[in-house]
Amino acid sequence: MLSDKVKKYLREHRDEHLKGLCELLRFPSIANVKDPDGCGPCAEWLVEYLRRLGMEAELLTTGGRPCVFAELHVGADVPTLLVYAHYDVQPPEPLEAWRSGPFDPEVRDGCLFARGASDDKGQLFTHIMAVDALLNAGGGVPVNLKFLFEGEEEIGSPNIEALLSEQAKRFDADALVISDVGFFAENCPSIIYALRGMCCFEVTFTGANRDVHSGIEGGVIANPISALAKVLSAFHDADGRVAVPGYYDDVLPLSEGERAAWAKLPFDESDHARELGLDTLAGGEKGYPVLERNWARPTLECNGIIGGHTAPGTKTIIPAQASAKISLRLVPNQNPDAIFPAIERFVAEHTPPGIRSQVQVQAISRPVLLGTDSPGMRAGKYAITEAFGRKPVLIRCGASVPVTEVFQRVLGLDAVMLGISLPEDNLHSPNERLKLEQLWRGAYMAAEFYRKLAPDSGAGNGEVDRV
Amino acid sequence: MLSDKVKKYLREHRDEHLKGLCELLRFPSIANVKDPDGCGPCAEWLVEYLRRLGMEAELLTTGGRPCVFAELHVGADVPTLLVYAHYDVQPPEPLEAWRSGPFDPEVRDGCLFARGASDDKGQLFTHIMAVDALLNAGGGVPVNLKFLFEGEEEIGSPNIEALLSEQAKRFDADALVISDVGFFAENCPSIIYALRGMCCFEVTFTGANRDVHSGIEGGVIANPISALAKVLSAFHDADGRVAVPGYYDDVLPLSEGERAAWAKLPFDESDHARELGLDTLAGGEKGYPVLERNWARPTLECNGIIGGHTAPGTKTIIPAQASAKISLRLVPNQNPDAIFPAIERFVAEHTPPGIRSQVQVQAISRPVLLGTDSPGMRAGKYAITEAFGRKPVLIRCGASVPVTEVFQRVLGLDAVMLGISLPEDNLHSPNERLKLEQLWRGAYMAAEFYRKLAPDSGAGNGEVDRV
Repeated sequence: MLSDKVKKYLREHRDEHLKGLCELLRFPSIANVKDPDGCGPCAEWLVEYLRRLGMEAELLTTGGRPCVFAELHVGADVPTLLVYAHYDVQPPEPLEAWRSGPFDPEVRDGCLFARGASDDKGQLFTHIMAVDALLNAGGGVPVNLKFLFEGEEEIGSPNIEALLSEQAKRFDADALVISDVGFFAENCPSIIYALRGMCCFEVTFTGANRDVHSGIEGGVIANPISALAKVLSAFHDADGRVAVPGYYDDVLPLSEGERAAWAKLPFDESDHARELGLDTLAGGEKGYPVLERNWARPTLECNGIIGGHTAPGTKTIIPAQASAKISLRLVPNQNPDAIFPAIERFVAEHTPPGIRSQVQVQAISRPVLLGTDSPGMRAGKYAITEAFGRKPVLIRCGASVPVTEVFQRVLGLDAVMLGISLPEDNLHSPNERLKLEQLWRGAYMAAEFYRKLAPDSGAGNGEVDRV
Repeated sequence: MLSDKVKKYLREHRDEHLKGLCELLRFPSIANVKDPDGCGPCAEWLVEYLRRLGMEAELLTTGGRPCVFAELHVGADVPTLLVYAHYDVQPPEPLEAWRSGPFDPEVRDGCLFARGASDDKGQLFTHIMAVDALLNAGGGVPVNLKFLFEGEEEIGSPNIEALLSEQAKRFDADALVISDVGFFAENCPSIIYALRGMCCFEVTFTGANRDVHSGIEGGVIANPISALAKVLSAFHDADGRVAVPGYYDDVLPLSEGERAAWAKLPFDESDHARELGLDTLAGGEKGYPVLERNWARPTLECNGIIGGHTAPGTKTIIPAQASAKISLRLVPNQNPDAIFPAIERFVAEHTPPGIRSQVQVQAISRPVLLGTDSPGMRAGKYAITEAFGRKPVLIRCGASVPVTEVFQRVLGLDAVMLGISLPEDNLHSPNERLKLEQLWRGAYMAAEFYRKLAPDSGAGNGEVDRV
């Protein structure tokens, strides 16, 4: 257990820590917008903040947005922990749906509202808070720390693999924690041991060389919106199954043990539907339970579509072009390198006469299964139990944290996924938030995790029941 | 034939007339944008211009954009001609595709480029030019003239029926000319005797109460874009036929005479496809010739679609909403009042669980068949032949001029469709243009038409072969 001094320090410095986090949240660090005031200044602010904390910090150049790297070396005889989080955020649109500005953090009802509050600046900040408390009230940090804060997680981490491969030595560590995940439910802390991969691409259908009059050419030429709708429609059969040939070939069947364990989790379909304003949870394949559809079955979702006249009122045209952004979520053992060509073939085969189609890949990441019995995993279970007063359940996740698989494949490190966000935190949505209680306990959890990793920390053994 | 004096006047006043038309084209008179500087100032400018010409002109209030009405009464013993055109224009987007500004008229290669140059301000202006020439060099106008220039044609003339019904007396006339059409081809003048009707509506599909993370909810909830794509796809069967039950029930079969006549028209499918940058003309129903698909078969076209993330880059969401704008083109004897409810039922039946759908009608107009043997039609044939040196062919049109049917039903007037635009004029598209030679001859045609309508004009009988 953490010393009373450390706990007291964390309690007494809440205002200061909140102030720091709010400064971090004010940067519109959206990786996919070419904005010189977005990610760069945010990364520089972090470097400066980490230096003031007493760490050696620097920017690492990548093919895209820079990474922030910081080290705290305490000795050759203690383990080295690599901490991963990301400072980039999702775009904030639709802006009109926010109660307060996405980059103007505001505390309401015990929560901090801002884009990135939960995903992932708040989680990143728990490590800063922990280091601050341990250095200033805990007699020091008990492990060697390496912080790697990425700036392109939300666009699929396109440059992280090259960085980890080329500078493998720099990231050498005994354990890895990834703080970019959440609880299964508010009173149900969890550790994720599998994540879906992703393949994002854009399909563009082109007809005539310009928008034309829908009376004068209607019935004469093919309509790219209708053609695009036909292929989007063909992607799923009547049972919600993805109809691309071979799509499910490499999907691992779920074990009966996992299926039974998931059925016991505190998940109420009606509550979940109601919270989203829905009558029913009608996504995915018929015949599978909701959690299985989300965690263990691959999906194909259209994230956006545009074509022709979209302003108010009518404009009677057949547009020259229509396009859709699509993301696949892939489950363990599926290989995006095999699936993307199958998508390209499917689109080509469904492109009608009079239309040209193009499929452009935007981001790829692989699914991952993590070991659940490492020293790091045991430390994680212990830290959660200490900080939140409950043992975590072991779960999978329908979302993707692409670096998890890259760390495993390139550095041989199986991550411990330690996160504090809650299902109600509106990740990727308007009014993203972080519950302050989760933030305070999150810092405590991070500090406990560092202590437990150190061989002479004297922390408990972190035994936990699976789910 | 017009007197040499009138011809000379028109030739000598080309610069002045072009200047006036350019002033008219500078107004961004888009009916469907709530812009106080759009239609209103344009209509006021017209009233002022027509007054200076010597006509009694005023604005007529409607439920929407005002109409411009002008009269020139020359005597009780001459026929009265009602002239219809419209001063509103299509929206100019996509702006980046214009070589010169849509509201900054520019002459290039013998053409005038601007939004509305051809549809319909240029055509409207031929009547102003004709009146100017007849009054100042032709010894006066030989008929009583009533000009009705509408401000909402491009949004489906939602208020014209009420205006014509409520003020029927004001619009009383012996003949009606509608100048909002074009030639079949550059050297093939034509008179249209049938137009398609239109039914514009917007379909909106709603899922969750906010955009959500496509990993966390992917496979869990239904996706409104996919659901919308399914219904858009279902609208057409594999043969391009509209699959809404009853859609073709009231379609009049084409006569063998019309089919044979159309086959003789100078229409080259390859040329048309090439001009649009296409390999093939693959729109409409399989098994019908192109002109029949466009003129005598109803269509369903998606004019625009939007949903979710449409900015550059990725945003992995399942959006809360997606919507599509659709326009039906209806052929003679189809009734939009019967067809729209069938569309509503079709959309409702194709709305999957977990999605709410809404269909909102935006504009409705009826198809029309016109008499081809009236005094007005004979005058039209004569005027075209005199002005352009060729007899017109009689054709149908795939587009809609909604007022045509309203004039027929409400006032009992079968219009003569006299227009000067060319297929290459990019109507409703970027770089809309009007060939100046068509403008000059159009003014000549309008003046000849007035003269021929007058009983003692001595003009020829305007005989013409059907097609």
